[in-house]
Amino acid sequence: MKIVEGGVCAAKGVRAAGIHCGIRRNKDKKDLSLIVSERPASAAAVYTTNLVKGAPLIVNKKNLADGVAQAIICNSGNANTCNANGIEIAEGMCSLVEKATGISAGDVVVASTGVIGQPLDIAPIASSIGPLVASLSKDGSDAAAEGIMTTDTAKKEIALEFEAGGKICTIGGIAKGSGMIHPNMATMLVFITTDVSISSGMLQKALSSDIENTFNMISIDGDTSTNDMVVVLANGMAGNETIKAEGDDFDAFMKALNTVNVFLCQKIAGDGEGASKRLECRVTGAATKEVAKTVAKSVICSALTKAAMFGADANWGRVLCAIGYSGAPVDVDKIDVSFISAKGEIEVCKNGSGVDFSEERAKEILLENEITIAVKLNSGDESASAWGCDLTYDYVRINGDYRT
Amino acid sequence: MKIVEGGVCAAKGVRAAGIHCGIRRNKDKKDLSLIVSERPASAAAVYTTNLVKGAPLIVNKKNLADGVAQAIICNSGNANTCNANGIEIAEGMCSLVEKATGISAGDVVVASTGVIGQPLDIAPIASSIGPLVASLSKDGSDAAAEGIMTTDTAKKEIALEFEAGGKICTIGGIAKGSGMIHPNMATMLVFITTDVSISSGMLQKALSSDIENTFNMISIDGDTSTNDMVVVLANGMAGNETIKAEGDDFDAFMKALNTVNVFLCQKIAGDGEGASKRLECRVTGAATKEVAKTVAKSVICSALTKAAMFGADANWGRVLCAIGYSGAPVDVDKIDVSFISAKGEIEVCKNGSGVDFSEERAKEILLENEITIAVKLNSGDESASAWGCDLTYDYVRINGDYRT
Repeated sequence: MKIVEGGVCAAKGVRAAGIHCGIRRNKDKKDLSLIVSERPASAAAVYTTNLVKGAPLIVNKKNLADGVAQAIICNSGNANTCNANGIEIAEGMCSLVEKATGISAGDVVVASTGVIGQPLDIAPIASSIGPLVASLSKDGSDAAAEGIMTTDTAKKEIALEFEAGGKICTIGGIAKGSGMIHPNMATMLVFITTDVSISSGMLQKALSSDIENTFNMISIDGDTSTNDMVVVLANGMAGNETIKAEGDDFDAFMKALNTVNVFLCQKIAGDGEGASKRLECRVTGAATKEVAKTVAKSVICSALTKAAMFGADANWGRVLCAIGYSGAPVDVDKIDVSFISAKGEIEVCKNGSGVDFSEERAKEILLENEITIAVKLNSGDESASAWGCDLTYDYVRINGDYRT
Repeated sequence: MKIVEGGVCAAKGVRAAGIHCGIRRNKDKKDLSLIVSERPASAAAVYTTNLVKGAPLIVNKKNLADGVAQAIICNSGNANTCNANGIEIAEGMCSLVEKATGISAGDVVVASTGVIGQPLDIAPIASSIGPLVASLSKDGSDAAAEGIMTTDTAKKEIALEFEAGGKICTIGGIAKGSGMIHPNMATMLVFITTDVSISSGMLQKALSSDIENTFNMISIDGDTSTNDMVVVLANGMAGNETIKAEGDDFDAFMKALNTVNVFLCQKIAGDGEGASKRLECRVTGAATKEVAKTVAKSVICSALTKAAMFGADANWGRVLCAIGYSGAPVDVDKIDVSFISAKGEIEVCKNGSGVDFSEERAKEILLENEITIAVKLNSGDESASAWGCDLTYDYVRINGDYRT
């Protein structure tokens, strides 16, 4: 596997674009993105488990029922959720793509992100669809990644090459995260393209399996969005023999997909709303995978642990507390905890009780901006990681006045 | 029922005290409290469900196995949790009470609150137990309430009179809350005394039943503490015929207990760490009690809803989002949401979609410091309330540097 340039356009036959159409007031902020594959692609998607679902998700489920899609349109600035006319607007966005590109509306994936409960005006999208299609290019991944950002401060994109059936295949993705991030079955807007040839069934199998250990293990604020989705389009243009079952080629694809997803997870975690630090909780020695995941996610979600990390305070008692209320059956007296960063590692808890450690050394380690909280359960061989960020003044500032 | 003065000392035969013994560095902050009943009392308690349990809880379970207690000792500044010698120290505190008062160590309830994982030195408690016992008085509830506070900014106490078996009975309580508050079976340190005569079995029944709708419905930050407990002592000095079964007298006691608990819940919620507003989510029209409680608690725990309330922003989409991910089966298209305060009520969502409302009027209502988020599910007759507070810069400040 090799990292390459191009993001979501790295795969053969994929172009993208992003522009400002007018949904947002700030003219410098792109708010409409389009990704188009030259050929119809196998498509797989996972969505939020929130009972309140954005209208685009409902339209997508219908459009992707046949496992085929060829384009993705996405606006930021408005979630098109909890609006009486939401479905009509989401379908309207697909029809606009059909009119401008000839791709059937039923092969268009539609997504929206932004404020919930404000009607989405289709007029600015309708008047900009022409210029948007005209600007599609192989260099368009950056612009598309910008067009889906809300409070994100950085673009999130990656691409890499892998081999399947003797052919060089490419996979790339873009993502947005930032707030209302606590995915459960999917995460806030991740679009992945690949030129591998794979059946939509196997594509869905790969995606559904991988997100359990990647996007479902992020939390910024414990709020599971109404509009989360991860979509993968695989257009087959790499020319490999179509992957129709498990085997070496499927494993190669799974590994590439996992690498893309872990990278995007880390980017989303590090760019959580207001974040000054990216946190990872790495749990090892668990009796079962489920215990490892439950413990990791409980620690990463703890408001008190997040605030302590913001203050570079080695307050490990909050980590133990979060493990204790996680609901996972653990033997408290066997737990060891360390903090790790680029500056080194420091053990703070052994067998469930505190050990003497240098507060000065702990501070030095915790002042870094990527921290791993390492939890050893010493009860088995399973492990898991969860990703998140610290809780900062800026999180409160951003969310105390989001709409105005 | 009638509100009276005296807090935890309002019941006949109960005295209390609180002093600074030296666990905390700040000499102006009381850090050790004692509550003593003239006679042995029926005792009931509930504790945290966190698997990491403070040493005092383990000692209490043993001491309260016979349903009898006569004194409560509690320190702040150190949780005596995750320490290798925790049990020894907690038992030592009970022994100190025995030596100074003659009350058997096995009839002493012990509690600690503060930092987790730092050994608790018993020396300052030992050297102060004499003066502490000497200062016990009928006016001591205020001092005892102060002695158990950590980041609390206000004392939390109440007392009221009720009638059982033709006798005037009194019940009173004190509480501490503030941070690491998301009780599950109990809450952070609530001590209640009453002179009603009641068997310990019925007392436990009343307490266990009531906390499901009171303390277990508060959340400040989603972190369930390791040291939560609610303890009730009933010394029988009101002279009523002992309550040994359900009936009018039990109902009268339940009503009084519930009034005390709801009052203390509201105080804990309004004084959450860094809070500028007290929030209540009142859910009505639920198909089942469980749905009502799940929805209410999900909304009150939502970091995004809490931050919006801090900003007096009527961002009701976040309320819908939190209802949607609560896990409760609800019909989204039937949900109505209003915001209510002393300035009035404003409806913001009807049948799951936004309604036109005046942002100016909403702001006026949300600038108050006690806000009710009213959620109508329109699917049945059950209701529930949950209590919490907004998420503020001060929460981050307090918890970014709690230990230093």
